Amino acid sequence: MAADYIGSLIADVGSRDLFHDLPMFHGVAPSTIDKLHDTGRPHLFSKGQIIYLQDDPGEFYFLVLSGWVKIFRETLEGDEAVIDVFNRGHIFGENSLFEDGVYSASAMSVDDTSVMMFPTNALRAALSNDGTVAMGMLNAMSDYRRGKTREIESLTLQSAAQRIGCFILRLLPALPEGESFTLHLPYDKSLIAARLGMKSETFSRALARLKKDANLQVRGASVTVPSLTELSNYCCSACSNEFPCGDLKYG
Amino acid sequence: MAADYIGSLIADVGSRDLFHDLPMFHGVAPSTIDKLHDTGRPHLFSKGQIIYLQDDPGEFYFLVLSGWVKIFRETLEGDEAVIDVFNRGHIFGENSLFEDGVYSASAMSVDDTSVMMFPTNALRAALSNDGTVAMGMLNAMSDYRRGKTREIESLTLQSAAQRIGCFILRLLPALPEGESFTLHLPYDKSLIAARLGMKSETFSRALARLKKDANLQVRGASVTVPSLTELSNYCCSACSNEFPCGDLKYG
Repeated sequence: MAADYIGSLIADVGSRDLFHDLPMFHGVAPSTIDKLHDTGRPHLFSKGQIIYLQDDPGEFYFLVLSGWVKIFRETLEGDEAVIDVFNRGHIFGENSLFEDGVYSASAMSVDDTSVMMFPTNALRAALSNDGTVAMGMLNAMSDYRRGKTREIESLTLQSAAQRIGCFILRLLPALPEGESFTLHLPYDKSLIAARLGMKSETFSRALARLKKDANLQVRGASVTVPSLTELSNYCCSACSNEFPCGDLKYG
Repeated sequence: MAADYIGSLIADVGSRDLFHDLPMFHGVAPSTIDKLHDTGRPHLFSKGQIIYLQDDPGEFYFLVLSGWVKIFRETLEGDEAVIDVFNRGHIFGENSLFEDGVYSASAMSVDDTSVMMFPTNALRAALSNDGTVAMGMLNAMSDYRRGKTREIESLTLQSAAQRIGCFILRLLPALPEGESFTLHLPYDKSLIAARLGMKSETFSRALARLKKDANLQVRGASVTVPSLTELSNYCCSACSNEFPCGDLKYG
């Protein structure tokens, strides 16, 4: 398959390092991580491809090397809830290990996406044989749990405009030196809207409100924030965390 | 302290059995569970007492024996997001083990509440010494994670009326034999509203809508549902799970 061939050429660039850096492997012996990495193979998913469906048997877990993947669930009426959007350096699908062996949500590539795919069986075996793997997964799952609690709080207490501002602030790879900064939205606005639990119309109205209230300039995917303080005051007043978010661990 | 004395008289009724039945101890040797239970002591919190605050050191975890506890976070502006509401047989606070040793949210008794409180240090030691404890906690945390994902989906895709209907359906201890059933709301409506991420006004309007759309009769805390099918069709059409929810595992 052409996609497989291309995948095998480009997909595993840096894969081993990314794999070693996964939060769930903190504290695990490098030789164990290497052995798990050796079970993987590269694969390329073209834009819009279903990687797996909710309730499929969880045979593989995936490390994203390039591109974007959305994790989502669909209602009987065909509406979609986007649970996560993952890019380079994130894994997904590993949780099927604890969910009766099936995926609890569906996964789709939202762009051409290269991954390494690993059999969950090998991870299951490592989990039984090596206590540090279980501890690493517990810590990683706890971080994830905390993130989801934050999202529920945000859906409950923040306005749509505040949620978009929060999303922008959390995109910063490091705190800017001055007050103003410019960044690019990582994926298209309709997916950002879905990720934040909004309809597209709500997102557009809320973005307009945010531009007005916090003086943001938005041109296509480019967002300029004139005052970090103003934006963080605007968003973080409706959050139980203070800016900057502790979980982002800026260096 | 009088509360402590009363607590010691009534609090540990059935505590050991409840402790053994905790999902996080599935697969753990009974002797290990017993040893952990022996580290606990009963305590009574009167209605409205703070049990711990967000960012307090996580010295204890708690098993609820009677009453209700809410887990919540507060914004700088004083708004409150209710993350969980727990009753008899549930534990809370144990997750501080994985969160830099502090509680990631606050806990308050919403009624007179008796608990067993256990030092987290003993659980931390068990976790290092016994791989089955880590596996049990991983499975329990994964269930919790799945529940939170469901809540995010619900906040995103269900109407307020559908969320209340879903809350009612999930209260059923077992599936009723016929179509109609009556149950009592477990705690007051303002707390249910907060737990579902709604303002009280939204809750009242949504409940009125639900009464009309699914023919519910509500008298005080008593809710009569004339048709299980009608109510589940009404709520579950906007959910990715089919009725009855798989995670409830009706016998």
